[in-house]
Amino acid sequence: MTLPAPLTGVVPPVCTPLTADREVDVPSLCRLVDHLVAGGVDSLFVLGSTSEVAHLTDRQRRLVTETVVSHVAGRLPVLAGAIDMTTPRVLEHVEAVTAAGADAVVVTAPFYTRTHPAEIARHYRLIAARSPVPVVAYDIPVAVHTKLPAQLVLELADEGVLAGLKDSSGDLAGFREIVTGARSLPGFSTLTGSELTVDAALALGADGAVPGLANVDPDAYVRLDRLCRSGDLERARAEQERLCALFGMVTVGDPARMGGASAALGAFKAALHLRGVIACPATAEPQVPLSAEETERVAKYLAGAGLL
Amino acid sequence: MTLPAPLTGVVPPVCTPLTADREVDVPSLCRLVDHLVAGGVDSLFVLGSTSEVAHLTDRQRRLVTETVVSHVAGRLPVLAGAIDMTTPRVLEHVEAVTAAGADAVVVTAPFYTRTHPAEIARHYRLIAARSPVPVVAYDIPVAVHTKLPAQLVLELADEGVLAGLKDSSGDLAGFREIVTGARSLPGFSTLTGSELTVDAALALGADGAVPGLANVDPDAYVRLDRLCRSGDLERARAEQERLCALFGMVTVGDPARMGGASAALGAFKAALHLRGVIACPATAEPQVPLSAEETERVAKYLAGAGLL
Amino acid sequence: MTLPAPLTGVVPPVCTPLTADREVDVPSLCRLVDHLVAGGVDSLFVLGSTSEVAHLTDRQRRLVTETVVSHVAGRLPVLAGAIDMTTPRVLEHVEAVTAAGADAVVVTAPFYTRTHPAEIARHYRLIAARSPVPVVAYDIPVAVHTKLPAQLVLELADEGVLAGLKDSSGDLAGFREIVTGARSLPGFSTLTGSELTVDAALALGADGAVPGLANVDPDAYVRLDRLCRSGDLERARAEQERLCALFGMVTVGDPARMGGASAALGAFKAALHLRGVIACPATAEPQVPLSAEETERVAKYLAGAGLL
Amino acid sequence: MTLPAPLTGVVPPVCTPLTADREVDVPSLCRLVDHLVAGGVDSLFVLGSTSEVAHLTDRQRRLVTETVVSHVAGRLPVLAGAIDMTTPRVLEHVEAVTAAGADAVVVTAPFYTRTHPAEIARHYRLIAARSPVPVVAYDIPVAVHTKLPAQLVLELADEGVLAGLKDSSGDLAGFREIVTGARSLPGFSTLTGSELTVDAALALGADGAVPGLANVDPDAYVRLDRLCRSGDLERARAEQERLCALFGMVTVGDPARMGGASAALGAFKAALHLRGVIACPATAEPQVPLSAEETERVAKYLAGAGLL
Repeated sequence: MTLPAPLTGVVPPVCTPLTADREVDVPSLCRLVDHLVAGGVDSLFVLGSTSEVAHLTDRQRRLVTETVVSHVAGRLPVLAGAIDMTTPRVLEHVEAVTAAGADAVVVTAPFYTRTHPAEIARHYRLIAARSPVPVVAYDIPVAVHTKLPAQLVLELADEGVLAGLKDSSGDLAGFREIVTGARSLPGFSTLTGSELTVDAALALGADGAVPGLANVDPDAYVRLDRLCRSGDLERARAEQERLCALFGMVTVGDPARMGGASAALGAFKAALHLRGVIACPATAEPQVPLSAEETERVAKYLAGAGLL
Repeated sequence: MTLPAPLTGVVPPVCTPLTADREVDVPSLCRLVDHLVAGGVDSLFVLGSTSEVAHLTDRQRRLVTETVVSHVAGRLPVLAGAIDMTTPRVLEHVEAVTAAGADAVVVTAPFYTRTHPAEIARHYRLIAARSPVPVVAYDIPVAVHTKLPAQLVLELADEGVLAGLKDSSGDLAGFREIVTGARSLPGFSTLTGSELTVDAALALGADGAVPGLANVDPDAYVRLDRLCRSGDLERARAEQERLCALFGMVTVGDPARMGGASAALGAFKAALHLRGVIACPATAEPQVPLSAEETERVAKYLAGAGLL
Repeated sequence: MTLPAPLTGVVPPVCTPLTADREVDVPSLCRLVDHLVAGGVDSLFVLGSTSEVAHLTDRQRRLVTETVVSHVAGRLPVLAGAIDMTTPRVLEHVEAVTAAGADAVVVTAPFYTRTHPAEIARHYRLIAARSPVPVVAYDIPVAVHTKLPAQLVLELADEGVLAGLKDSSGDLAGFREIVTGARSLPGFSTLTGSELTVDAALALGADGAVPGLANVDPDAYVRLDRLCRSGDLERARAEQERLCALFGMVTVGDPARMGGASAALGAFKAALHLRGVIACPATAEPQVPLSAEETERVAKYLAGAGLL
Repeated sequence: MTLPAPLTGVVPPVCTPLTADREVDVPSLCRLVDHLVAGGVDSLFVLGSTSEVAHLTDRQRRLVTETVVSHVAGRLPVLAGAIDMTTPRVLEHVEAVTAAGADAVVVTAPFYTRTHPAEIARHYRLIAARSPVPVVAYDIPVAVHTKLPAQLVLELADEGVLAGLKDSSGDLAGFREIVTGARSLPGFSTLTGSELTVDAALALGADGAVPGLANVDPDAYVRLDRLCRSGDLERARAEQERLCALFGMVTVGDPARMGGASAALGAFKAALHLRGVIACPATAEPQVPLSAEETERVAKYLAGAGLL
């Protein structure tokens, strides 16, 4: 299907349920999609950071995309990450995910290699020239260790190279520069990747949000989006604060024993498992699993939010 | 062939010659291997950072490994990088390069994902358990944004998980801790990835060096290695300083126009082209090529070193 | 005077006008204070980063504080930075600025030395125990290379060690955690240091703002604050966007010739000079001055905002 | 006295003994100076990072410099740190330490403020123009978060602005560029700040070393220096490795409870206390003290090195 321009509303970065031996759990993935669709989300984003894309093999990535595209069956647009180190490798993923039916590709700046704004521009131009679907830039410095300069994003948007931006930089002022600058570029999508400042991003004019926590509570992010759009800011803030409290689950993993990604993805998957959406809370290797006691604390977060 | 334990001497990270349309230039790659073998190097390392591994597709990586393994035909050991974000993806590369005949795999800490020492340990243990050949750790914080802790490397070495370390961290004190600690682990290989402090690394007990500049002047690095081993430190220092001067070529690329990787790999390939080893100096996308004037300056560095 | 608890509204970090030979220009400083008071600001903050505190000698710091306190004469509260590397040095500044009449001190985490959360807590506890006036934490990772953890700030607030926070981290999600957590701590002041997201910070519950650009256009920040408080969010956003555009002046300095601080402070002072508030636009050494042509571009920003 | 040009040999950065209530312990400081002089060191460096300069008030800094200068009484040159954020503040320290008799000043790049190479150059030029004694650059990125570019150091050396460099960057390749480049600048001093690679630094041509651990075992660093100079590299390496093992004491502090500076300085002072040189092992606020058990482990390191 044609990607809406701009893309608006809630676009969850879909978790990738795994079996205990770390294979894609297709039935759980379909249930998760149903859970999100039932929650009223506007589009789906597969193969993002929250999907553990960095851990999925090419075969698994293909399986995820095909599964979601086929299960969604055109009800919602499906964006897919084409996440790899540099242009030639990204282009292979673009080919794979579009063959599998993705409606847009989401692409970061080059990583592993040291990079430069001129090289980032070249990267996106080459990819857009070869992609059969729109290209959304993914600004995620915590992963790629480069921040996309706002002026570069606007320049590439103006050229038609970029169809949108998913901003996971945490830099709301920089995002605002793009949101404001993109007003003259109708159709360009500005999406925040934050779980915690969706109300603020929408208030300054963002088109939508890509919050990982929407896997756990899609209904709430949809409510938040609708409250913001209707101008009911008091209730929007209350909903956002409820979600901020729920997001506290990402801190249950012991930092002496695991990194932040193990803790956050472990918590999301534990929550989905506890809510009965997915069959197994396993995260991909080499992530460290939550302990039973840590999982118990995730349950308390869910209970506190009325989700259990 | 069985990897020497420890691996010693000069182990160039082999550049990947490309055609003008960015395909692997197999005849040039074979000529480059001949050039290195003729220079007297001790082993070859394909698919490292200097090989532009971050830019090569899986098909190209396979072609490079098969080409070099087959062309070397057992004269020297061939190590191959299995460079990807996390364990499952790295394991696919391990399978591919060992199927193509690599004698060892070289593996970094996870990247893109935020990581933790416990996850790095888990990563190497899982890979070693599945690899048919020895695993060499590749410490390259500039690429993966994590430094391998010295005590963790020694612990994994002691367990038999790691067969060696290629240190590209620039932290000689940390490397020394590993070199000294590994004295009780005969067979563990300690290799510096520096072009500029090979004499210092060998003096403190390192087994060998993996200098990208050895593509351009393998004979000199072999001389340097032999001078160090024979204890002729005055002449070793002079040879090292000559190579430091030659390394200045990595600064010819204009930093306003390109990043450090474009500049360094562009210079190495320009030098190999100027010396008649490879047919085309192209670097992979999205790297920015050197200008004619910048290439001229590479030629001056070569002339200054008596290589043109 | 007693510091309001919480401190609300617009608290400009007062620029320090200098003469051509880099002495504090007392008459210009008094005029700047009058300009800010006339603009309707709620409090004044001297000796912050925007005041070039890092460049002022102890004598100059004393002169600035005495001048402002005496010129304000109790009309508004005056906060003063006590900015130095560690506890003993900060305590000397606390003594000096409170002797000069400051109503509160603003203190960063330790810097230069490598630090740790336990040491940061110890630092603030020792300072609060010795300070005759309330202590406001100053979270400015770009300067001190440490981020104050939200939970630590809340813990110190709860203990009565901290009376408030000025957040210049750019991390709105982290700031929100403190703002929300501080609801149960009446009197604790939450102030954003951003020029660009004041509307967002106030919307999520912050008490006030400390925007450097308020030196140039205090009336606009006061209008913005009042619009936010009255719930007129459309007009607030428009005012904020006007100020974001004006803030573009910090980019006129050529990054090939100077750093970001030279450019930003140079632009603020050029604007104050062009507006007739201060006699000389000089910044402290070793900052690089704006060129005539760059100053011309500052004038265009002012003209565009109707300020010239 | 006139600073030797170049400065050679061992230049310990003198610890600042404190009393239990954190006042400078003058008798202990004199004993420490005697201990260093008896060890055969070549010069003394007060008010460096190892001296806890970041924690000393201006009065304490003056007292330290006067005490050491007067106690040394011309037997050795005394260098003094003039460590502060920017030019005007550094100049005040230059005036103070030279009034107290320092033979050279040691100055870092600006910090706290964001900086730029052009501003760093301006900083050193202004300071050299006003300093009555030679200026030594102090490259310590871990503290100031800027690396001095090698070419800039050489340019300032060539201009006569800088008389030497203390390199605490850990980047031996960059240091080598300066050491090699400075061969044509007779009199320019190249000093490594490393405890762990003094042999390597001297082998590539450095003039001397400024190792914090020399407080604990000055004799060993003097032996190491003499062995390197006489070309007895086997014994030099053994001595260096013995010192590397002794340096392990900096890891006894629990990283869950304190930062790296607390741990390292705590260990050095505990060792000096255990060896009977200083009366009290206290470190300055807000550093966290070693526990009794951690101090016990320092004693084991000393015993292992035959120092107790």
